[in-house]
Amino acid sequence: MFRDAITNMQGYVPGEQPQAGKFIKLNTNENPYPPSPVVIEAIRQTAENLVRYPDPLATAFRIRAGEVLGVDPDWILCGNGSDDILTILTRSLVDTGEMIRLPYPSYILYKTLAEIQGARSEQIPFNEDWSLPQAFGDGHDQLKLVFLPNPNSPTGTVISREDILDLANRLPCPVLVDEAYADFAEFNCIDLVKENPKIMVSRTLSKSYGLAGLRFGFLIAQPQMIAEFCKVKDSYNCDAISIAGATAAIGDQQWFNNNRNKVLKTRQRLHDGLEKLGFDVIPSQANFVWCTHSSQPLKPIYEHLKDNRVLVRYMDYEGWSDGLRISVGTDEQIDACLSLIEMKV
Amino acid sequence: MFRDAITNMQGYVPGEQPQAGKFIKLNTNENPYPPSPVVIEAIRQTAENLVRYPDPLATAFRIRAGEVLGVDPDWILCGNGSDDILTILTRSLVDTGEMIRLPYPSYILYKTLAEIQGARSEQIPFNEDWSLPQAFGDGHDQLKLVFLPNPNSPTGTVISREDILDLANRLPCPVLVDEAYADFAEFNCIDLVKENPKIMVSRTLSKSYGLAGLRFGFLIAQPQMIAEFCKVKDSYNCDAISIAGATAAIGDQQWFNNNRNKVLKTRQRLHDGLEKLGFDVIPSQANFVWCTHSSQPLKPIYEHLKDNRVLVRYMDYEGWSDGLRISVGTDEQIDACLSLIEMKV
Repeated sequence: MFRDAITNMQGYVPGEQPQAGKFIKLNTNENPYPPSPVVIEAIRQTAENLVRYPDPLATAFRIRAGEVLGVDPDWILCGNGSDDILTILTRSLVDTGEMIRLPYPSYILYKTLAEIQGARSEQIPFNEDWSLPQAFGDGHDQLKLVFLPNPNSPTGTVISREDILDLANRLPCPVLVDEAYADFAEFNCIDLVKENPKIMVSRTLSKSYGLAGLRFGFLIAQPQMIAEFCKVKDSYNCDAISIAGATAAIGDQQWFNNNRNKVLKTRQRLHDGLEKLGFDVIPSQANFVWCTHSSQPLKPIYEHLKDNRVLVRYMDYEGWSDGLRISVGTDEQIDACLSLIEMKV
Repeated sequence: MFRDAITNMQGYVPGEQPQAGKFIKLNTNENPYPPSPVVIEAIRQTAENLVRYPDPLATAFRIRAGEVLGVDPDWILCGNGSDDILTILTRSLVDTGEMIRLPYPSYILYKTLAEIQGARSEQIPFNEDWSLPQAFGDGHDQLKLVFLPNPNSPTGTVISREDILDLANRLPCPVLVDEAYADFAEFNCIDLVKENPKIMVSRTLSKSYGLAGLRFGFLIAQPQMIAEFCKVKDSYNCDAISIAGATAAIGDQQWFNNNRNKVLKTRQRLHDGLEKLGFDVIPSQANFVWCTHSSQPLKPIYEHLKDNRVLVRYMDYEGWSDGLRISVGTDEQIDACLSLIEMKV
């Protein structure tokens, strides 16, 4: 009864989300700090007004985000998490048998979205220095969408603005710069959207705003692109509470910056601690750190951490070394994690 | 840059949702009564716990709903509104060029979902007495999904359980019994899901639980079906707040029944009032009433109501008469609406 594409695929498996018990959770890049109190207050107020359908276009958020980011509201499309944005883009742009492109290693979900669509995906390995080969910008007829997470996961590395502009100029199709982690980076690509309609940027409030539980993300793209994507999104894809909470969150830039700075400081502490324990650590521009080890097996370390109720992400990419991706928690959480690792190396 | 299917389609336009000003809103079948206070309390508590990703499977809701509805939790899939469920089903079952079926007139969104998928749709007109012709159950190779809203919108009429079981036995593909309005009807089809894996039932908390702003719906289907649909849904399609609110809502059956009974009583008042004003009114099993008029043009009545800040839905189905679909509000709202109509007939 199902489409072959669905029967033949494996589902995407997100990082573990234990619903009970006390864990130090450093496996899915959540923020260790709570959202601003104005967010909680906005949610509490909206809880009393839920009988009506929400604003299909989340206008309040688009206006506020537009002010903060220097973008016209018509250039913003809101989604039920940035996963919803990625889904909308894939469904809008990629037909059965056509192709998406992603770098390797990166976010596996891009492949899953192509599979659901009955499309194929082309993984182009990063260079040794985590730059992209020239081939990443080569076009062909079947290529309809390029995903470029920037910063990348699991590595936390970035591709420069100049390279992204060059990529878009060479590619025949849109490129989504997935900026889920860009709030922790030294630069972002929002203003490049004006330079080339093929450049689109996605954001999420899950990481930098501490709102993974709320599901709110958005796309920045030229208005003629947004208009087409609107046809594909569910009419009421964002609920009234997430719109109110997200609007309040992006409005409190002081709270945001304060937490961001704490995360950046702890990221350095994690980086240095791992290096001291003999790991190879890539300088990260995200809220996690990717580390490998030239002699130690990493799976037992992951399991030792889990046995002690510290969750990190163990990843084994074919053709690359395996590694641990550790989200930046509080200083105390990171110190606890490092102490446990020290027992095993 | 876009798929032809997207470029060539019109987007679905939901009923008007004025974001400002005071309207009596009887156009999108929302509930006139607020959700239970336990819902508001659950949301307020969850507002303080949003840094973590939500439970991907909304287990708490599935357990509670399972108890209330007499269904095993493994038979339940939760969605970001029942529109999300409809989207997941279409993407899972219907390939490019294949076909869905829906009765006519009914919910236009089904057609839009087929269009997004690059699929076709087959609209089979209701009989004069709002039963379905034999042809609605005829199978062919291209037919992959049948949508059957029950009660139907805009008419509020129902197809019997026996006829639905018979349909499913004859059809080669799954049939979704869209029970968005079934809480206002004399029966539902939940237990038929056990009889035939091709029968699936969708529900929403938008209407009968007064939670349109929260976006929460769910599917009841056999577990082997749910497992495949899970591959297609976004990992975190329901946010932590909607899961908590929906769980509390379905747990308070006393509040639910109390509001339901008030709506049923006012539905009769609306029905009788419209008949007195000379309308042809179909007995409704939903929270709205569909009326037509043999001699009066209805568009001016719709506009007169709107000018007076009462929104109802004017619908004009090709080949059928045009009509007004009026949601059941409070007694006071309905009396105000009827008085305004009286001025024009």
